[in-house]
Amino acid sequence: MSEQLVVELNCDMGEGYGRWKFAPDEELMPYISTANIACGFHAGDPRIMRDTVRNAVRLGLQIGAHVALPDIIGFGRRRIAITPEEMRDNTVYQIGAIKAFVESEGGTLAHVKPHGVMYVMAQDDPALGEAVVQAVADVDKSMLLYALNDKNAPIATSYGVTLVPEGFVDLHYDREGNLLIERVKQAWDPHLVADRAIRLVREGVVAANDGADVSVNGQTICLHGDAPNSVEVLRTVRARLEEDGIRVAPLVPPKS
Amino acid sequence: MSEQLVVELNCDMGEGYGRWKFAPDEELMPYISTANIACGFHAGDPRIMRDTVRNAVRLGLQIGAHVALPDIIGFGRRRIAITPEEMRDNTVYQIGAIKAFVESEGGTLAHVKPHGVMYVMAQDDPALGEAVVQAVADVDKSMLLYALNDKNAPIATSYGVTLVPEGFVDLHYDREGNLLIERVKQAWDPHLVADRAIRLVREGVVAANDGADVSVNGQTICLHGDAPNSVEVLRTVRARLEEDGIRVAPLVPPKS
Amino acid sequence: MSEQLVVELNCDMGEGYGRWKFAPDEELMPYISTANIACGFHAGDPRIMRDTVRNAVRLGLQIGAHVALPDIIGFGRRRIAITPEEMRDNTVYQIGAIKAFVESEGGTLAHVKPHGVMYVMAQDDPALGEAVVQAVADVDKSMLLYALNDKNAPIATSYGVTLVPEGFVDLHYDREGNLLIERVKQAWDPHLVADRAIRLVREGVVAANDGADVSVNGQTICLHGDAPNSVEVLRTVRARLEEDGIRVAPLVPPKS
Amino acid sequence: MSEQLVVELNCDMGEGYGRWKFAPDEELMPYISTANIACGFHAGDPRIMRDTVRNAVRLGLQIGAHVALPDIIGFGRRRIAITPEEMRDNTVYQIGAIKAFVESEGGTLAHVKPHGVMYVMAQDDPALGEAVVQAVADVDKSMLLYALNDKNAPIATSYGVTLVPEGFVDLHYDREGNLLIERVKQAWDPHLVADRAIRLVREGVVAANDGADVSVNGQTICLHGDAPNSVEVLRTVRARLEEDGIRVAPLVPPKS
Repeated sequence: MSEQLVVELNCDMGEGYGRWKFAPDEELMPYISTANIACGFHAGDPRIMRDTVRNAVRLGLQIGAHVALPDIIGFGRRRIAITPEEMRDNTVYQIGAIKAFVESEGGTLAHVKPHGVMYVMAQDDPALGEAVVQAVADVDKSMLLYALNDKNAPIATSYGVTLVPEGFVDLHYDREGNLLIERVKQAWDPHLVADRAIRLVREGVVAANDGADVSVNGQTICLHGDAPNSVEVLRTVRARLEEDGIRVAPLVPPKS
Repeated sequence: MSEQLVVELNCDMGEGYGRWKFAPDEELMPYISTANIACGFHAGDPRIMRDTVRNAVRLGLQIGAHVALPDIIGFGRRRIAITPEEMRDNTVYQIGAIKAFVESEGGTLAHVKPHGVMYVMAQDDPALGEAVVQAVADVDKSMLLYALNDKNAPIATSYGVTLVPEGFVDLHYDREGNLLIERVKQAWDPHLVADRAIRLVREGVVAANDGADVSVNGQTICLHGDAPNSVEVLRTVRARLEEDGIRVAPLVPPKS
Repeated sequence: MSEQLVVELNCDMGEGYGRWKFAPDEELMPYISTANIACGFHAGDPRIMRDTVRNAVRLGLQIGAHVALPDIIGFGRRRIAITPEEMRDNTVYQIGAIKAFVESEGGTLAHVKPHGVMYVMAQDDPALGEAVVQAVADVDKSMLLYALNDKNAPIATSYGVTLVPEGFVDLHYDREGNLLIERVKQAWDPHLVADRAIRLVREGVVAANDGADVSVNGQTICLHGDAPNSVEVLRTVRARLEEDGIRVAPLVPPKS
Repeated sequence: MSEQLVVELNCDMGEGYGRWKFAPDEELMPYISTANIACGFHAGDPRIMRDTVRNAVRLGLQIGAHVALPDIIGFGRRRIAITPEEMRDNTVYQIGAIKAFVESEGGTLAHVKPHGVMYVMAQDDPALGEAVVQAVADVDKSMLLYALNDKNAPIATSYGVTLVPEGFVDLHYDREGNLLIERVKQAWDPHLVADRAIRLVREGVVAANDGADVSVNGQTICLHGDAPNSVEVLRTVRARLEEDGIRVAPLVPPKS
């Protein structure tokens, strides 16, 4: 965290499609500082993007492009063997699209966060990881790039892009610090999640699935909106952080 | 035309999709000043957009967003009953996407031109016409908006957007100045097209399908790349204009 | 109704897409006799189609193809100007796709029901109405074709297809018998809907929005699964019909 | 081959999309016995499917479903990590769709051939290979399943499905019998391809890329329609086979 007593809470937003809704975005937004907004490739059509961006700007949230592989039916969770050039160009396309909405609503696109399997592919395959960095640099180097850990920080730096590793407190890590994704997001005890968030901010540590402590360099905390009790979890985490003297704020302050 | 002896030649580019090609873009580009590049809604995937933008920037062409209704199978030519809000948001999305490619290649997105049935809908339905103007203004008021005629100029002006009426010389107009679209673009005699282009530039007139002269306020000339002999037509028009002392140049000069 | 004391209750099923759910299908299915299953053009991917068909076969429901215009984002509710040939071929495609699932699960595809704006277009435009009839006849003339009223019965008969007019009891009709679609399905009082259903079966009449009685030749009753209280409505209608001595059964009895 | 002097020539057909064409299908069809027709997932919209099926039926060709991964932009050539259930259900969907067109045109759907990377995935991954077999069995066990080699023959047999290994004569094999796909199909000398076809029929052997002979159990020969000189290649192969006393005929004779 940039300071000990400040933390960013980010959450994926705008993941409906056409008639279909996903998470209760409007109930969740008051508790977060930062919204990762879907760009149409795994979720989010132009109308939903507009509405979500507008709400996020109104609440003063930091806004990021939640870019994904092109896979509506698979919700961006099925690995597709795309080339680095395709990865870069798909990403530029999506960043440009959401940026236009954000700026037309008077906001600033502040960060880029790959979604689903793209998030993992950018970590695992150096060429794909570089492709995502290139896409960010192509559009605006001042945007932050969110990632699972700091593995791609050097390549990001070489393009003039700042990489921000995330921490997760409503999912398990194993002892090696690998994140264990839940296929369908489960309800977690809100106070447990809050405890983990406070500990991550204060100590840089979370308890792994086997009980051991794992160091997590999380400069922002990602919370999930699609758990059955996500509103309660986010409300509780936000309240408990503030009770604990930790301010919730975006990494990039919105223009006043 | 802004001066008597200068004219812009614009042509739709990048209308392939995935493995499929459409017009011989690389052979056509040397003869035009201005490229309207497809944005993925009727044609043009991110890789094709990147390649087309790169070629256009390299050749110093003016670049515009060739925005369309969302209809790949129908090539943007089937009327879809969308609301003005959908029209505006679909358009913002596409402008943003292509703008990101143009700027990442060092160019400037200079204009917006609706494609196919969207071009007609924006003329026919005031609310949809305004929605397109709003989308342009949302992203960047300095972009020009190309249109069939100047009917929407007042609404464009009210948003601070400049509307540019086009002239067509490889299609027929009827006596009332309505454009007669060819379902499948036919081959036209290249010298006839050149004659019509010269006359449009010098006199502001084209011969209608019944032989009568029709005034056409075309501040830019659109030529089609999908005729069977389009390369020959464009080469001939370009050569004949220059022989006639008419310089071909974009309305918006590229940054040097 | 084929007999006075039997009525079919049909409901649209399988209208999720990828990760997104729509109506609580599994809770609704026990109360209906007949499922109209989405075929992938407005909703319903292959996995959802499989699951929905399997559940419907297991419960002994009559199964129909709920065919639609190709418009996922618009949920098949935006008019698209397609030709009769496109209408016919899109419909054949969808019927074939769902039929394969139904037969692989041991069932029989018994009817076809156009969805959303396609339902209206088939009523309003004779050429499009005939195109839908042709598509049914192309695949299997013994399938019933559900429609708003019996206007297209003669053209259906000429192709050897039987048309079945529907009655609606959870929507309003105007005095002329036009159905008044709710943009977002509202909650209706379950007992009011049940009263209307019983009266439609016994008297062939529903109360219009101005209170006047309207004759409705509904040989099957369509109920909506996407109202906020749809489970309660369907449970109540089913129970009240049976209390009233009216048996709920499909028009086409499933093979035993 | 079922008899020494008869061979099937199959070719992929109907691989355009919307406005875009792919191969010169109508020029190629007279030289083949068997058409693998795209089903809308990698290419082929309903209108193109209808036209292609109609032409194939008119010429008395054997017709197969050319099923693919859902990837229009990638032309079904990008590996997508789908589950066996998704593979099966996507395949059933496509088989059903094309079957409806074939039967409505008076033909019979006789075989199924996976396209592009799906063809390879069905070979490489036993669970995906079985999923494809299941899909064929789900719809009609009497359909043949075309494959690269006979590796999946036992699993096909266990479902009552007959697997047909293909031979390729316009692509290279390596010494181990692996097919070497050309990213963009190159022109091959038509007489070389004809020589290879004759030798494959008469001796069951092709020359590998290093000159060694490789045994290929090709019960049908696949030729590509997307080479720059494909019409000439197919015309030459057909003529040379017949000059050599080898009759070209489908494996499944069309109903008379």
